[in-house]
Amino acid sequence: MTTAQPGRIMAGEMAEQPEALRRVLAHGAPEIRRVAEAIAARAPRFALLTARGTSDNAALYAKYLLEIQLGLPCGLTSMSTTTAYEARQDLTDVLVITVSQSGGSPDLVASTRAAREAGAVTLAVTNNPDSPLAAVSEYHIDVQAGPEKALPATKTYTASLLALYLFVEGMRGGRGEAAAVLPELAEQVLARQDEVKALAQRYRFAERMVLTSRGFGYPTAKEAALKLMETSYIPALSYSGADLLHGPLAMVDNVSPVIAIVTDGRGGEALQPVLDRLRDRGADLVVIGPKAQVDAAAAGFVLPTAGVAEEVQPILEILPLQLLAYEVTIARGQDPDAPRSLAKVTETR
Amino acid sequence: MTTAQPGRIMAGEMAEQPEALRRVLAHGAPEIRRVAEAIAARAPRFALLTARGTSDNAALYAKYLLEIQLGLPCGLTSMSTTTAYEARQDLTDVLVITVSQSGGSPDLVASTRAAREAGAVTLAVTNNPDSPLAAVSEYHIDVQAGPEKALPATKTYTASLLALYLFVEGMRGGRGEAAAVLPELAEQVLARQDEVKALAQRYRFAERMVLTSRGFGYPTAKEAALKLMETSYIPALSYSGADLLHGPLAMVDNVSPVIAIVTDGRGGEALQPVLDRLRDRGADLVVIGPKAQVDAAAAGFVLPTAGVAEEVQPILEILPLQLLAYEVTIARGQDPDAPRSLAKVTETR
Repeated sequence: MTTAQPGRIMAGEMAEQPEALRRVLAHGAPEIRRVAEAIAARAPRFALLTARGTSDNAALYAKYLLEIQLGLPCGLTSMSTTTAYEARQDLTDVLVITVSQSGGSPDLVASTRAAREAGAVTLAVTNNPDSPLAAVSEYHIDVQAGPEKALPATKTYTASLLALYLFVEGMRGGRGEAAAVLPELAEQVLARQDEVKALAQRYRFAERMVLTSRGFGYPTAKEAALKLMETSYIPALSYSGADLLHGPLAMVDNVSPVIAIVTDGRGGEALQPVLDRLRDRGADLVVIGPKAQVDAAAAGFVLPTAGVAEEVQPILEILPLQLLAYEVTIARGQDPDAPRSLAKVTETR
Repeated sequence: MTTAQPGRIMAGEMAEQPEALRRVLAHGAPEIRRVAEAIAARAPRFALLTARGTSDNAALYAKYLLEIQLGLPCGLTSMSTTTAYEARQDLTDVLVITVSQSGGSPDLVASTRAAREAGAVTLAVTNNPDSPLAAVSEYHIDVQAGPEKALPATKTYTASLLALYLFVEGMRGGRGEAAAVLPELAEQVLARQDEVKALAQRYRFAERMVLTSRGFGYPTAKEAALKLMETSYIPALSYSGADLLHGPLAMVDNVSPVIAIVTDGRGGEALQPVLDRLRDRGADLVVIGPKAQVDAAAAGFVLPTAGVAEEVQPILEILPLQLLAYEVTIARGQDPDAPRSLAKVTETR
């Protein structure tokens, strides 16, 4: 599919995000809270998160929320243990959350069915309540993002993050008030596309990029890397700040630009020694984060984080990075709507 | 540290691997079995694995073993949830395994101490029984690899894999007979360095590489990518075969060579559709695996997998890839012993 106007579909869907967030808050929240209360009553002891691609980054965000906000130990599913090796696990007391935009990938359906048969409480978070995945799960949350047609997922990602945030809040009896500011702030961020367009010139000829963060911002680093790779084809490597120091740092030099996602909170604080190391090495460091952090870097994009709870900042952080993937791709003369060789519903087994 | 003869230390340590494996089998196994039986008696319901860098890839191998061989649901720890966010979890019935070559990184020690205080059964797998990590853990397994001086970890990786394999076998009352063939096969593989040297020419000018596998071979893909990055500085991206299809495939073309690790077993079977897609795209596909798989690729390294249980093949698979990282680095005129800006004990907090 090549569109007459490259990137038109992705641009439209990125722009819909404030509205999609409003929809989750206004129309999705009551049902999410009911699901959360029903699952909390089952008192799960562990959580397993199952997803692929962009949804896997949403699942990683949920892992941080479940561990930090609920103290629930979590794991990300290695799906082949079920689908290829037919491992049989006792999943009593385990909450299995499967995140999928389409709800259609056969391995996710098979893995969720196996989990339910193994005694797990199963929850599907999808953008399609009529999907096979929604049908096979005991509980379902509809992220209500509306049809997504561009191959790079954008609005389903932020809507999934918000739905997962409200779910975890509901699990602990909260109402997720911290999210109320997000639609308006998302609008403000998306209105600054020109700033991102200027930043994109920096990466027009980049042969590789490194993205890093820590804590709540780490899923953003991974999702930004995926978005950059699937639209611009630039190899983008993502590491938690601590992992970057255990090996990959050797690769960072003045030809590997680094983008750091610095949350305003404990994750950002924990990232400071990594930022210092990167500056010592003369890395080209671009920061997505609060103003003081951007000012200490070569360039960046200032996020409006004042008064915004750290745990919801990822829903804003990804927006300039989605725009960046889009602008870099346009600058390289490619079409963000139609990455070569990708299908919207990826059928892995 | 620049050595008079580049790569001398790494080469020596790679060559020690068959001997290190023999030591684990002969001298380590009885104690590993005692630890495994003691932990099995505690009947953990869930396992969390904590590690960084190369040890994180050993931990991922253990995750596959625990899930497939024991049916124990597992997760990899997001360490910042404890060290940065001070999350407090109820870890009753949880086995926490921390893998670290040095046993010295402060965050691993803090995270393991917190897990023990939260009720977990704690096991440290290290190459240093006198380390702070060994001291803070309830149980300890010494991988007995001897001092490792090159910055890229090699012999501690394979020794850790074998120790973890014997541990999981011990947990289910087995003796790990499948591992008995490994020292001799490792010798045979390492003796074929000339083949790898020829293969390395292919990557001398590579600007990026993609590594992929599925199931038991996936930790090998991740470890090979790390090894290539920290020695040669080539950006090496690793994906499970299924994840590769969800986005990053767009980046694979004739300038992104692909190395696939194809285990002889269910993981390798599950990878076939991905290999077909890669061949369809005209990717430069190099295979590490059984002869038939190598014959169907552009080039490769044939592993002696006949009669070798799939779950121990990773201990052989990584060997030609360690050699490859070494040879590519030498071919590029760099010193594999001394990657810039890395310290042997990485102190992340």
